[in-house]
Amino acid sequence: MELNSMASSPSWWRSLFSPSRNPVTVHCFKRLQEYANLKLVTSSQEKKALASLKEMEKIIGYKFKEKSLLQQAFTHSSYQESESYERLEYVGDSILNFLISKQQFFMYPNLSPGSLTALRAANVDTEKLARVAVKYNFHKYLRHENPMLSKQIQVFIKAIEKYPFHSYGLIDAPKTLADVVESTIGAIYVDSNSSIDTTWEVAKNLLEPMITPEMLQQNPVRKLNELCHKKKLKVRFRDKWLKEGIYEVIIDNKLKGKGVYKAKKEIALNRAAEDACNNILNSTSESLK
Amino acid sequence: MELNSMASSPSWWRSLFSPSRNPVTVHCFKRLQEYANLKLVTSSQEKKALASLKEMEKIIGYKFKEKSLLQQAFTHSSYQESESYERLEYVGDSILNFLISKQQFFMYPNLSPGSLTALRAANVDTEKLARVAVKYNFHKYLRHENPMLSKQIQVFIKAIEKYPFHSYGLIDAPKTLADVVESTIGAIYVDSNSSIDTTWEVAKNLLEPMITPEMLQQNPVRKLNELCHKKKLKVRFRDKWLKEGIYEVIIDNKLKGKGVYKAKKEIALNRAAEDACNNILNSTSESLK
Repeated sequence: MELNSMASSPSWWRSLFSPSRNPVTVHCFKRLQEYANLKLVTSSQEKKALASLKEMEKIIGYKFKEKSLLQQAFTHSSYQESESYERLEYVGDSILNFLISKQQFFMYPNLSPGSLTALRAANVDTEKLARVAVKYNFHKYLRHENPMLSKQIQVFIKAIEKYPFHSYGLIDAPKTLADVVESTIGAIYVDSNSSIDTTWEVAKNLLEPMITPEMLQQNPVRKLNELCHKKKLKVRFRDKWLKEGIYEVIIDNKLKGKGVYKAKKEIALNRAAEDACNNILNSTSESLK
Repeated sequence: MELNSMASSPSWWRSLFSPSRNPVTVHCFKRLQEYANLKLVTSSQEKKALASLKEMEKIIGYKFKEKSLLQQAFTHSSYQESESYERLEYVGDSILNFLISKQQFFMYPNLSPGSLTALRAANVDTEKLARVAVKYNFHKYLRHENPMLSKQIQVFIKAIEKYPFHSYGLIDAPKTLADVVESTIGAIYVDSNSSIDTTWEVAKNLLEPMITPEMLQQNPVRKLNELCHKKKLKVRFRDKWLKEGIYEVIIDNKLKGKGVYKAKKEIALNRAAEDACNNILNSTSESLK
């Protein structure tokens, strides 16, 4: 990179950067030029960062008094230069959990404690929050140095197309995406002088559309168990996960479902159960034709 | 039981209760007497319940506008007659988690996220909250119809004598005791028109003394692993839990620790690790003598 502003500088300033044959002067010139270049790069990076922060504020719908809090909220631990989002995530996670619990408690006075817990999970679990992050392009502003993470995010973005609201355990959501939503909420809480109302206003908008009791679906394993109980079918799982990343569902001694996912056992299991449910329901509707 | 107030009643009222030889009148008399007795019992129960509520308010340090909320907070699901504490526990759990997270976040600005999480767990986990319940005699006001629970509570009260603040996984705390602290906090939050400040004031007093970073101890299994790593000892666990409720710790091919607890695997494991830690440290101090 060259020092672009030299042409328009006064002669005394230009002379400072004129190389001479004296090695000490040449060395000094180089150091000065490096410093000036660095300043230019930093200044350009700073401008870009500031623009990003303004964009993020617009997306989130909250203007930070302390911009560094927002920057911290978007800094993954793999990014060496500054403090990561983890402390803000710690506080943000607990606020979000409380805000949703409170809202559901008053909104659904007749809902059982079990249903309230399932509903809260569907509205603040890793998948739901990772979806929020993708919807609002949070991943584009995330500061990290982990190439694997970028790949995982791309796979997740593709996977959620199939499930408009929630997959209930069929897809693997990158935890970092959920973390950054929680850290952002934590940052707003801290920046707004611990204002519950301000934090809820922002969080509510980010989480819309909320999953309601009517939209809530069961986890595939529970769904399969209930279906088999209702139809008096004998169900068992065959665990091939350690060697092949596979779970199989055997119903009345016949293979009726298969789930593959090498990175997480639970997802392979859920996929097998979902596959078996679909096969049972399809064979029932076939026999009714 | 007799109708005690009859002697001072007017004659027309007394005549109502005078048995005659007419079987219909006798029947009517009996029904009326039963009804009057029932009224007396109910009224005496009500008085007792009201006195209990007043005592509880004094213990908690909060006066309820809606007394039924306090009563609900102390009603276990085994108690058939009225709504159980579970919905209040659902909301109370999330408030408590948030309040402690928030307090620790601001109180310890340099504490790592991992330490913050461990500290929060030690201050709001089942054992800590069950200790709060025992300290303030909550179990004496708990409405339940589960004889097993009464026994478990007595065993727990005896067990905590050995550990002044926390056993970190060595004793089994009845979840119901922790639940009733959470439901009480939930009830205060609802009764105080969702006042975070009022709820925190009561919760803070109940939870004192708070566990600080200096008081925090590691889980026995982690403690053992670190100790063995430091002393270059080879450690493994022998799982006899399913058949005998026992875990054993083998260090450099010698039995060095044993943990017994039939009701929960995790506690047997922690006890084995703790036992092994003590044996290693004792043998080290013996060899130093």
